[in-house]
This record gives sequence, structure tokens and C-alpha cells, in this order.
Amino acid sequence: MEIKELLYEGKAKKVYNTTDAYTVMVSYKDDATAFNGIKKGTIHDKGKVNNEVSNKMMMYLEEQGVKTHYIRQLNERDTLVKRVDIIPLEVIMRNKAAGSLAKRLGLEEGTLLKRPVLEFCLKDDDLGDPFINDDHILSIELATEEDIVIIKQMARTINALMKTYFEKIDIDLIDIKLEFGRTSTGEIILADEISPDTCRYWDMKTGEKLDKDRFRRDLGKIEEAYMEVYNRIFNQQ
Amino acid sequence: MEIKELLYEGKAKKVYNTTDAYTVMVSYKDDATAFNGIKKGTIHDKGKVNNEVSNKMMMYLEEQGVKTHYIRQLNERDTLVKRVDIIPLEVIMRNKAAGSLAKRLGLEEGTLLKRPVLEFCLKDDDLGDPFINDDHILSIELATEEDIVIIKQMARTINALMKTYFEKIDIDLIDIKLEFGRTSTGEIILADEISPDTCRYWDMKTGEKLDKDRFRRDLGKIEEAYMEVYNRIFNQQ
Repeated sequence: MEIKELLYEGKAKKVYNTTDAYTVMVSYKDDATAFNGIKKGTIHDKGKVNNEVSNKMMMYLEEQGVKTHYIRQLNERDTLVKRVDIIPLEVIMRNKAAGSLAKRLGLEEGTLLKRPVLEFCLKDDDLGDPFINDDHILSIELATEEDIVIIKQMARTINALMKTYFEKIDIDLIDIKLEFGRTSTGEIILADEISPDTCRYWDMKTGEKLDKDRFRRDLGKIEEAYMEVYNRIFNQQ
Repeated sequence: MEIKELLYEGKAKKVYNTTDAYTVMVSYKDDATAFNGIKKGTIHDKGKVNNEVSNKMMMYLEEQGVKTHYIRQLNERDTLVKRVDIIPLEVIMRNKAAGSLAKRLGLEEGTLLKRPVLEFCLKDDDLGDPFINDDHILSIELATEEDIVIIKQMARTINALMKTYFEKIDIDLIDIKLEFGRTSTGEIILADEISPDTCRYWDMKTGEKLDKDRFRRDLGKIEEAYMEVYNRIFNQQ
């Protein structure tokens, strides 16, 4: 299989066509953005950390029976994944209140939620990725009722598996953003990435943030936080 | 039964205690507010129109099998209703896009939704009555899963009944805001009001707005719009 032309360049990744109709290559960048692209920067080696961390998570989820887009890592920054049509939804699973949820409900960051909260946001930069509900999805025909049931079940399962995974390396999974895609056969599978860009990770002992909030909120030690997550994942036995 | 002390004064209504433990009196004011109280004004005879319109709607819904808080109208502005604990949710049913939904999804006002959209907002002035979803409700224990099922069913039924009712008097029901309460026996019933303050009514022929948007958006002829709705309801045969 050969890598062909650039299909799409996102904020943190590029996607390339390949000679295989069912496969694309994802290439992770060091570019970082926040607040719908208003804040921009670079996090040294972020592309490498996110590529390897995300692949490790996808492989783990596959072992646990979750279907993902992951095929094979090519090198530090590049990975082959199944070609999917991305469903234009950000699916956020929250275990503790942080960020927009803390603000919305007037809760202190870190407040344990009585049960994990699932939120849908419409992936639309022009609209600012607005928070929406099931009825909005149905009314603008983004997905069917059956799709929503599948996506919710997968999101809750992935969150539970990831929460347990990170607990073992002393990381509290506060929330996680997921994206799903549809394969050529119509199957819904996990796509995008699972990394410090798309999760909130808090150190279980110190409460220190080990994720993109360090960039969003100018907390410093950004590269160190990403490497800390990387090291805990790859150095655990 | 005697009317006793003021229990609560809201933006558009006052609620008085009575000598009957299961009954309170609602008194409708002419005060109008918008944008979470930032805009304030008075709409002449609004209290009278909303009291009589809302009572008529509640009686109609009762005839159709919907349980409401309505007991008996005392005079132009005052009505006896069942004492309930208000569930702190605004339940919005939308048939066409308008207001915050049009903005959220980038739709033109008046766009027909493929199916009626139900939205929950948390009744909390300090937080600006934020839009929330089922999981938020469960996570902060505002209501149980069973309560949510009942509220959604009631809201969809009420919307369908009201839509048909208003079609007969050439009014397009764009959206409607509902509130529910819990009686002393735990039953969930429709509370608050159904009026030009809580619905968007568009004239079916001209598209003219016959509701509180005339106040919110400084469209003029506010009293005339409220009276037009009143007259169509009470002059139909």
C-alpha cells in the first residue's frame, strides 16, 4: 500500500489517502488550538505522544471488544486507520465536573457526578461546536434513533474501560471526548483519538492536570504533562 | 377558603397561600421581563389576558386527559391552582426553529423541524437558565429516570394538542415552554401557564408574531398582539 495525497488537514492531524480504498493514514501534528481556534500554539512532540498513546488505547479497547478505526502504526507520528465517514458529533463523557459543565451547572471543578454524564456537541466550527441533545440530532437528521442508541452504549463502555485503565496508573479520568465514524459497510466504530488533547487527566494523588488544560489555561509544564502520561502508560508492567 | 399571605413573587405572577393546604392562588401581573430580567417593562392588561388564556388552555387540556394544576378562576387576574412543588426545569417543545434553537443550529427562523424537539433548561436565574440534558438532570438529582419519561410524554402530548388547538384559530404554534409540579401525593402535573408569554404564536396567514417576541425584540403593537390571541380564543365558536 502506498500513501497518496492529503485528504484533509485538521487542527491537530492530517489525513492522507492511500492506494487501499478502505484505509487512510493519519499524521499527528504538534499544533495545539483551543477555544475554537482562537488560541494557537505548538506543544513539542505532542504529535508523537498523542499518536502512540491513542494507538495504545485503541488496541486496548479492541481487546475489550470495542470496534475502533485502528489498523497499524507506521512510525512515531503516522498511523493507518480504517476510512470512515465521521459522524459530526463530539461525544463527551464526564465522570467529574470540569470545564463547560462546571460552568453550566454552577459546580466546583472536580465535583463527582452521581453517574457519568454524556453530552453531544455538533461538530461545526462556525457555530462553535454547540451543545445539542438527541432531538436536535434527529431533527436535523445527523443520525437515526438506532445510531444514537449504539453511540451512547459505545461511549459509556469506552468511558468505563478508560476510567479503569487510567486508575491503574494513578490518573483520574475526569472527562473524555469521543468521535465515531461509519465504515463502508455502515458499521459505527470509534474514530479520532484518545489522548491528553481529548481527555482531562488529573493525577490521583496531587490533583495536577496532565492534559490540554495546561495549554488552554497557561499552566506551564505542558510538554512535561504529556510526557508524564506517555511514561505512565508505556512504563507500566 | 380564604386567601392568606404572599408566598412568592415571580417576574410575571404572585402566589398566595390559602386556608386550604392543597390550594394556592396565582395572581397575574402586567410586568414583563426578558433576557433573564435584563429587559423590563409593562404590558397593559397582560395579566388579565394570560390568566384567562392560560385557564382556558388548562381546562381544554384537562378535557383531553392531561392532568394540570388548574382549579378555578376567581376573577380577571386571580386563579386557584393546586399547590405543587415545581420541578426546576423549563421544558421547551419546538415545532419550528426560532430564538435560541435557530441560533444554536444555524437555522433560519421558521424552519420546520423534522420532528418536534424537546429541550430541558435548568430553572436557575443565577446560571441564566442553562440548556441541559437528561444526564445532567440525573447527575444533580433534579428528577428520576421515571420522572423524565413522564415529563417527556406529557410535554409531547401537550404540544401536539396545543398545536392542533391553535391551528383552528389560524395560529402557528412555533414553540411552547412548560413547567411541571409534583403534588402532595407525588403525581406530576402541568403547572405554570400557557400564554403569549410562554409560547411563540405566529399568524398562519401573515407570519406576524403574536407573542412576547414583540416585547423582546421591540416590534411594537405588543398589547394588540396579546389581545388578538385572546380574541381568537374567546370569539371562536
